[in-house]
Amino acid sequence: MESSPLGTLTVFAGSPDRGRGLARDMTVRWALEELGLPYRVRPVAMADLQRADHLSLQPFGQIPAYEDAGIVLFETGAIVLHLAGQRPGLLPTDQAARARTISWMFAAANTLEPPVIHLETAGFAYAGQPWEAAAYRPLEDVIGRRLAALDRHLAGRDWLEEDFSAGDLLMIQVLRRLGGTGLTSPHPCVLTYVARGEDRPAFRRAFAAQLETYRSTTPAGNPP
Amino acid sequence: MESSPLGTLTVFAGSPDRGRGLARDMTVRWALEELGLPYRVRPVAMADLQRADHLSLQPFGQIPAYEDAGIVLFETGAIVLHLAGQRPGLLPTDQAARARTISWMFAAANTLEPPVIHLETAGFAYAGQPWEAAAYRPLEDVIGRRLAALDRHLAGRDWLEEDFSAGDLLMIQVLRRLGGTGLTSPHPCVLTYVARGEDRPAFRRAFAAQLETYRSTTPAGNPP
Repeated sequence: MESSPLGTLTVFAGSPDRGRGLARDMTVRWALEELGLPYRVRPVAMADLQRADHLSLQPFGQIPAYEDAGIVLFETGAIVLHLAGQRPGLLPTDQAARARTISWMFAAANTLEPPVIHLETAGFAYAGQPWEAAAYRPLEDVIGRRLAALDRHLAGRDWLEEDFSAGDLLMIQVLRRLGGTGLTSPHPCVLTYVARGEDRPAFRRAFAAQLETYRSTTPAGNPP
Repeated sequence: MESSPLGTLTVFAGSPDRGRGLARDMTVRWALEELGLPYRVRPVAMADLQRADHLSLQPFGQIPAYEDAGIVLFETGAIVLHLAGQRPGLLPTDQAARARTISWMFAAANTLEPPVIHLETAGFAYAGQPWEAAAYRPLEDVIGRRLAALDRHLAGRDWLEEDFSAGDLLMIQVLRRLGGTGLTSPHPCVLTYVARGEDRPAFRRAFAAQLETYRSTTPAGNPP
């Protein structure tokens, strides 16, 4: 039994993102690094996500889950919001600015991420079908419209609101999933925004930490 | 210029849900009714969602947006969380229970709603294609797995956590979108949970109010 107040983050063992820092635990790691909160990780293999002990932490069998001081949380957005409430750095104290930041957190989770994830999963589910390109097109269209709206908002700004916040952190992690699709290319403000996020020291520390977990939990011969 | 502190909720004029209370403004109306907060509505036609005046409230051209006392918010989850912070009734005061409730709010927004919305939009985008059933199947599968997880969690419970909360409100509104698809039928705890939500007096007041808006903003001859 430990008396340490360290939080424990449940992450993938042998992450399917192959160490590219796209899995949702990276988002929470980044938040923890921005806030200067140390943490422990508990890697869980994909094959064990539906086991009763994991389901008791995360009812849908996903990662991440987060435990600290008797609180068991799930959902990346909720975990980041909880952490952002512990120390200054990710959430403005002014009530109006704080509510705006939370709007952007939900916009990342509910407006941007859904079609991005769906395009990814469609890429597996529809692969090799003669109609796959036709099935992707409406998804690419909705992603394109939402990126255009975001690009318009970001023109002349460094971050979504005045200072870097939990909203940027969630949004940039969603946008990073589009790397290699070409969908962000027509949106220069989005491109520089993502690069600005990836350039933060806390991002780089979190990225290195998830890569180390990937390497230490992945059998040799399965490089990133 | 009014001195009233009433909030203003932006809703659809002539809602595409045809008065069935499935549009996201219904979720916010329900929250306002649970909390006993009066509000005004500002109906906006679908054709005007991309106009500059609406985009200044909602960068993605969606509904709802919410304004009160100098705060302009968007995203249903963020608006409900903001309102739930104003009065007791939708968010526990205990820190751990509050964080759990916010986990369920993000689970509704980020885990349950995305495949449900995709199945809806796919129903338009893929209609009439010879491969449409094949394209729907992976979406129906993921919805089925998530409903099964939710059904397991709800066994023996009235609500997601001890008391009715903002998490239930968001989750039940997502589940209501599946009415008529048959996808909830294998999940008895989900079915009774939705019925329990729809039976709340605040739900019924909100439903009646959105139906009245639908009727008063829809040309005759376009009944629900």
